Amino acid sequence: MLIVSPRRSVAEARQTRSDILASGVRLASAEGLEGLTIGRLATELGMSKSGVLGHFGSKEELQLAVVDAAADIFTREVADKARGVAPGLPKLLAMCRAWVSYLERRVFPGGCFFTAAASEFDDRPGRVRNAIAGLTTVWNRDLYRQTRTAMAAGDLPPETDADQLVFEISGVILALNNATQLHRDTTAPTHARRALTRLIGYPITAITLLLSLRAA
Amino acid sequence: MLIVSPRRSVAEARQTRSDILASGVRLASAEGLEGLTIGRLATELGMSKSGVLGHFGSKEELQLAVVDAAADIFTREVADKARGVAPGLPKLLAMCRAWVSYLERRVFPGGCFFTAAASEFDDRPGRVRNAIAGLTTVWNRDLYRQTRTAMAAGDLPPETDADQLVFEISGVILALNNATQLHRDTTAPTHARRALTRLIGYPITAITLLLSLRAA
Repeated sequence: MLIVSPRRSVAEARQTRSDILASGVRLASAEGLEGLTIGRLATELGMSKSGVLGHFGSKEELQLAVVDAAADIFTREVADKARGVAPGLPKLLAMCRAWVSYLERRVFPGGCFFTAAASEFDDRPGRVRNAIAGLTTVWNRDLYRQTRTAMAAGDLPPETDADQLVFEISGVILALNNATQLHRDTTAPTHARRALTRLIGYPITAITLLLSLRAA
Repeated sequence: MLIVSPRRSVAEARQTRSDILASGVRLASAEGLEGLTIGRLATELGMSKSGVLGHFGSKEELQLAVVDAAADIFTREVADKARGVAPGLPKLLAMCRAWVSYLERRVFPGGCFFTAAASEFDDRPGRVRNAIAGLTTVWNRDLYRQTRTAMAAGDLPPETDADQLVFEISGVILALNNATQLHRDTTAPTHARRALTRLIGYPITAITLLLSLRAA
């Protein structure tokens, strides 16, 4: 008689859940979060529909879990790259640099996961929309905070309008995503770096390391 | 015996097609172009599915017709506002002013139709994607052309990088759309006008009329 170890079964369930989410993020990035049906994922993974559904309970829970999984990837690929950097201007530059690189490297095959999801869900009130809006707000507030710190440290002019700067930085990133995804424009990362350099007043490339060492 | 006038029937068919497209644009703007099914539209309009399908033949043809109908609205609400204005800087300012106003007035209830459609279709090769990319390219080329004319006329500095300027203008508009739709941020139009004024070097509001009169 075969005794199935419960511990192994929990580990397996976790692995399956993680596999489902990896496929979910990939599919949603290219085809949208709303098109991410239980059936579509089941086919993709060679599982039964009930097998997929069992891990999440509902399509909305699956969508929320996929948003969380995408946020983990953004954290690893963008936020973490700026984690050790000194607050203020060095960190602001490092965040922008990592953000451009994330789109240039096409971390998500369909471009920025959150831009696509925001565009899809901005008119669909509910928990998925709230999750997306919440995550982008947290990121924007961090950009705002670093801008204020840079102003206080004298690294940005005291008359800087921090809200305006964050608005414009996000515009550059949205233009980069749009040009890369819709027009396959390979010059877009250069345009984005140039725009950010002009906005912030410092090159977002080489000088970043220097500033972070100086400020550390 | 009732004789149906063929002329009346053609006019009716045209009206029905136009009603279907008006609903289609409204639905697609809020819920996406891919979610725009024949069945959904038929329910919305109290028509039979075959009645809707008869006007277009396929879902793709319906999507293409909705993109064209949305383009007509953009032309009327944005491009036409700058049509009488003198080429170069006056026209560039008028185009930007009308573009911001179109988003501020929420001409499409779901925000910019083309931004949403681009985000949805950028990973779906085919005729719908090509139509969206083509329309945005035509608009961007017009912005580019006006920039070059403004440079030639001495209204913008000769060292202006026209591609870079168009990239950054589009970013401001994308940020405005995103902030308005996802965050319901009512300060976004002010941020957008400020950003465009700084980018182009002239206020995009009051002075436009003056410049267009001067240049006319």
